[in-house]
Amino acid sequence: MTDSATNMRLKLPITCFIMEIILIILFGVLVQYDHETDAKAWHKHNHSDYENDFYYRYPSFQDVHVMIFVGFGFLMTFLQRYGFGSVGFNFLIAAMSLQWATLMQGFFHGMHEGKIHIGVESMINADFCTGSVLISFGAVLGKTSPVQLLIMAMFEVTLFAINEFILLTVLGAKDAGGSMTIHTFGAYFGLMVTRVLYRPNLNKSKHRNSSVYHSDLFAMIGTLYLWMFWPSFNSAITAHGDDQHRTAMNTYYSLAACTLSTYAMSSLTAHDGKLDMVHIQNAALAGGVAVGTAGEMMLTPFGSMIVGFLAGIISVLGFKYLSPILEEKLKIQDTCGVHNLHGMPGVLGAVVGAITASVATVNVYGNGMEDVFPDVASGEVEASYQGVRQAISLAVTLGFALVGGLVVGFILKLPVFGAPPDTLCFEDSIYWEVPEGDHGHENQSTAVRMEESEKLNS
Amino acid sequence: MTDSATNMRLKLPITCFIMEIILIILFGVLVQYDHETDAKAWHKHNHSDYENDFYYRYPSFQDVHVMIFVGFGFLMTFLQRYGFGSVGFNFLIAAMSLQWATLMQGFFHGMHEGKIHIGVESMINADFCTGSVLISFGAVLGKTSPVQLLIMAMFEVTLFAINEFILLTVLGAKDAGGSMTIHTFGAYFGLMVTRVLYRPNLNKSKHRNSSVYHSDLFAMIGTLYLWMFWPSFNSAITAHGDDQHRTAMNTYYSLAACTLSTYAMSSLTAHDGKLDMVHIQNAALAGGVAVGTAGEMMLTPFGSMIVGFLAGIISVLGFKYLSPILEEKLKIQDTCGVHNLHGMPGVLGAVVGAITASVATVNVYGNGMEDVFPDVASGEVEASYQGVRQAISLAVTLGFALVGGLVVGFILKLPVFGAPPDTLCFEDSIYWEVPEGDHGHENQSTAVRMEESEKLNS
Amino acid sequence: MTDSATNMRLKLPITCFIMEIILIILFGVLVQYDHETDAKAWHKHNHSDYENDFYYRYPSFQDVHVMIFVGFGFLMTFLQRYGFGSVGFNFLIAAMSLQWATLMQGFFHGMHEGKIHIGVESMINADFCTGSVLISFGAVLGKTSPVQLLIMAMFEVTLFAINEFILLTVLGAKDAGGSMTIHTFGAYFGLMVTRVLYRPNLNKSKHRNSSVYHSDLFAMIGTLYLWMFWPSFNSAITAHGDDQHRTAMNTYYSLAACTLSTYAMSSLTAHDGKLDMVHIQNAALAGGVAVGTAGEMMLTPFGSMIVGFLAGIISVLGFKYLSPILEEKLKIQDTCGVHNLHGMPGVLGAVVGAITASVATVNVYGNGMEDVFPDVASGEVEASYQGVRQAISLAVTLGFALVGGLVVGFILKLPVFGAPPDTLCFEDSIYWEVPEGDHGHENQSTAVRMEESEKLNS
Repeated sequence: MTDSATNMRLKLPITCFIMEIILIILFGVLVQYDHETDAKAWHKHNHSDYENDFYYRYPSFQDVHVMIFVGFGFLMTFLQRYGFGSVGFNFLIAAMSLQWATLMQGFFHGMHEGKIHIGVESMINADFCTGSVLISFGAVLGKTSPVQLLIMAMFEVTLFAINEFILLTVLGAKDAGGSMTIHTFGAYFGLMVTRVLYRPNLNKSKHRNSSVYHSDLFAMIGTLYLWMFWPSFNSAITAHGDDQHRTAMNTYYSLAACTLSTYAMSSLTAHDGKLDMVHIQNAALAGGVAVGTAGEMMLTPFGSMIVGFLAGIISVLGFKYLSPILEEKLKIQDTCGVHNLHGMPGVLGAVVGAITASVATVNVYGNGMEDVFPDVASGEVEASYQGVRQAISLAVTLGFALVGGLVVGFILKLPVFGAPPDTLCFEDSIYWEVPEGDHGHENQSTAVRMEESEKLNS
Repeated sequence: MTDSATNMRLKLPITCFIMEIILIILFGVLVQYDHETDAKAWHKHNHSDYENDFYYRYPSFQDVHVMIFVGFGFLMTFLQRYGFGSVGFNFLIAAMSLQWATLMQGFFHGMHEGKIHIGVESMINADFCTGSVLISFGAVLGKTSPVQLLIMAMFEVTLFAINEFILLTVLGAKDAGGSMTIHTFGAYFGLMVTRVLYRPNLNKSKHRNSSVYHSDLFAMIGTLYLWMFWPSFNSAITAHGDDQHRTAMNTYYSLAACTLSTYAMSSLTAHDGKLDMVHIQNAALAGGVAVGTAGEMMLTPFGSMIVGFLAGIISVLGFKYLSPILEEKLKIQDTCGVHNLHGMPGVLGAVVGAITASVATVNVYGNGMEDVFPDVASGEVEASYQGVRQAISLAVTLGFALVGGLVVGFILKLPVFGAPPDTLCFEDSIYWEVPEGDHGHENQSTAVRMEESEKLNS
Repeated sequence: MTDSATNMRLKLPITCFIMEIILIILFGVLVQYDHETDAKAWHKHNHSDYENDFYYRYPSFQDVHVMIFVGFGFLMTFLQRYGFGSVGFNFLIAAMSLQWATLMQGFFHGMHEGKIHIGVESMINADFCTGSVLISFGAVLGKTSPVQLLIMAMFEVTLFAINEFILLTVLGAKDAGGSMTIHTFGAYFGLMVTRVLYRPNLNKSKHRNSSVYHSDLFAMIGTLYLWMFWPSFNSAITAHGDDQHRTAMNTYYSLAACTLSTYAMSSLTAHDGKLDMVHIQNAALAGGVAVGTAGEMMLTPFGSMIVGFLAGIISVLGFKYLSPILEEKLKIQDTCGVHNLHGMPGVLGAVVGAITASVATVNVYGNGMEDVFPDVASGEVEASYQGVRQAISLAVTLGFALVGGLVVGFILKLPVFGAPPDTLCFEDSIYWEVPEGDHGHENQSTAVRMEESEKLNS
């Protein structure tokens, strides 16, 4: 791989321009304001302006938006020399994905006379789909070019929309916070991609695949915004009223319990009892993932706390014992450990959702059953069968993620996308202008030049 | 104190696990959804989903939530070598406190057939109580182990709930933004704890008890989020309508005025006129504390600005002249200067609240009197007596805080909680895995090893 | 210029105290709660507390507030040695400006029996006006004393209010997101000020007029908060209902498209294809500026994306090719490149607004025409003439900004405000206590001392 191979001067602009121009054309042809954003349609009906859904979804949307751009973006800045790439590529692929997701989800969620109707709810859904892509990004962080990431995002958004359609519309599953559609899908898709892109000589960049003091603090900005706004994430598109309220509260308590078990496990699994920032930054969030499906159900704070408590334990154990095994035995190089934060807790969330659904009774839900399980309320299915639907949905999601990740991984292997050489993984200066004489205590330009020549000599 | 004494490997996991398991059991036994989060209860009544209190409290809750986790957490990252501890222990004790506060406050706020009913309002109250614990944390920052902090939080939450119950229910005082219940209580409790934990040889860690350039910038993240969201904090649990609206606005102007007096005083009290980051980071927030009680009253923007203006002046003078005296004469080592940010401005806020209450008239409040002073509106008490209630509340709060802090301080002195030695205060590497060869320009591990041996030799 | 000239010990406190005392007196004389914040007035009428505008504007206000203090503040921390000044002076002048703006805008927006009535809408407007001042601050960043900045802010707020009054009230233009009133005005005002304050020997501070690795990450915090909350900014004071909803959505898609064209152009204009943080931090935001006027109109997502796409291209080209020319030929030293982020995209936004207005039809807007173009709906003017009004408004804004900036620039040139010498521009230690032995890897105090002596010798 020569230097010119990783030069983005033509590759990146061409990819961005083509994608954006296609997006603009498709928006022009297909997309319309819905009845709450269209001036004429909204004013046709006799309602108060205060009934516009904007006021009941937009604050949640903004919290989700912060999670996508600041939460995910800064969570990944923990790497000492990949802060620009973490927050910058996160920004790029999120901006692309949310546009593409609007189209894909609009297409599958049902067109209106050949048009996709959009408003705040579709914006939330687009951000959700984007979140899934960013989870996969976490698995391949530092080992991919921005062009590879854009290509991956394009395919992943498409598969996400199909899987989501099958789960929510065909199978009638419930998954408001996306334990399955977002977390499980994003994690296993990304793990499969990174498996296909396996680099046997990645240890050449090993010294950069770690944090420095201030990069860990930047990452905590990401962690805390994800943690604080997760109640908004899980409740953003549930039914209005008690449903949103309950979902937010369940998530709040699940995360609190998860935080305590994370600290406990982090200290317990270190021989000197010292806390590990990797665990705090990631595992403390597993409680949000794990109530993504059941959060809107009558899980109770008690149930939510048990789920969060377990999620934190599982996640720390994953970071400590499973990740090294995955890397050595299965050749899965998972930069951010998304398997521990999104993969296992996502599966846990799906299972908890299936169980909670299967035991739902009118005695507990009353007339609220209609909001949470409309098919059970209408008598179309039994609660126990709703549980089966949820379980099938998990299997479908895993299938889509693994097969999709496999195919997309091989596409990304094509040697035209400018992937970084093994010696320059986790290194900003390959794709970014980095200030001179800075970047830790080492002159970056010199470092790059030395490694380039070392590479040529080897 | 040997190295094994500060090893958290058993102490911290055991404390976290026992606490969390007790919390989960108590939640299982005692806690229920309230009528706005319970599916059945909400759907029993014939109301619009848009009337759910979620839509009128949750945005405020999220702002408060950000203040608790990012605001307090990052405000304390100003120390050069204690960023992990600041933001990380803040995270841990906040996650524990909000669960414990739900139980304690629920118990005192009135049970429903033996059950605690929870919803968004109880979440805000739990975060408020947590804020008080974090203020005390600021006083002992860098000199306590995480186990000590968890123990302190447990006792402080309990005392907070009792004091709050006496003030708001027994005495009928008003304190929506918590000048007394949160700030005065948290500050004087923490000051008493740090007094009891006095370390005569703390100067051995003096070189770390200061900031570096980037740690001051991280701290400004905390400052600004506290400053921006303080209007939401003070208005989060006032009555709906004009009350919330007015409280937010009063706080907005108080803080703006406070910022100008803070800059003025910071420059005026420096011989070379240079601004001191400690003042900007802290004193500019005093205006929010000082209108915590009166903010919901008809204080007017004019009155709010006068209060904020004075709070800024008092706070800077406290940092400059009073804190050194407190440390030298009274042996109070107040790491973050919580006396200047929360203590004195909290007392000022209580006094302003008492005065403003005592001059309330129907002429000014109209029918709004019912929201702000229900007992005055019902004719149960005179406005002047409401003022007396407020003043008594301040005295009660100071009593609870000082006596409570004294007792809890002595409990924390027990030599089993793994407090750091004098030589390793304000140092992350005692409780955290710190990246090697980093952390300023010094190899941290070496530093720790040297200090350990120095300690052994002394 | 001697050292004592830049000593702020008397200048800054006197300026702050006089300003704040005047503000407090004027608030006391002139300002009253409006009918939604006044206890008596609100309770006179028979309405639900949930109809209070607080619930429909305050979440937007808080997002705008974050943009003003964290967004603008951290965006400017990219300079390696001016982080305190960026975020700290931003804080100071914003706190002053929002108070002064309340008075100036209240005066021009119409008094009620000699009183200014305030509530959440006036708070948003005050923050908007403050935003304009902060844009100008970006042009003079690092080259001005805090006293100069406060004086500039006082004049600029006044001129802003007059210009806004002429545009919105006299001319009947629409500009909800402030492409003209905020961005164009703030940018050209600031450019003119920095032109008048031209420093031929600024290259003496050239080595500090650039970023370091972590300062670029801090700046990304600012960028992302501006980017995420821009939909709230543009929609904060539009009419309720579909208008706010549509404006937020148009801005969302404009920004997403702008981000892709920014990355494309940044890579394309670098000979080695490497992305430039300056472009990402700034140009990706131009899409928000450029739909500031037309965002509330029926621009469609398609139209918004085209506008955003172009704004990103123009902005990067400006940074790359125009800014150096402006500096060399026109002697405009624009520290943050506000011409590229706010100037040109603001003018583009004004033009797009004029065109979109001129083609408005009842067929498209239906009864919503009343909200967006009340004068067109009432038949007072034709849509085409509304377009002319918009165009005239742009010309008026440019005139006010350039003439105002010229006059204020000369006022700021008076040698009594303590401007920094050429050798100490972009340097925090002239106005701030900076931690010793820190600040990059150089002992700051030494550096300052050396430069001072060098200056004396020259």
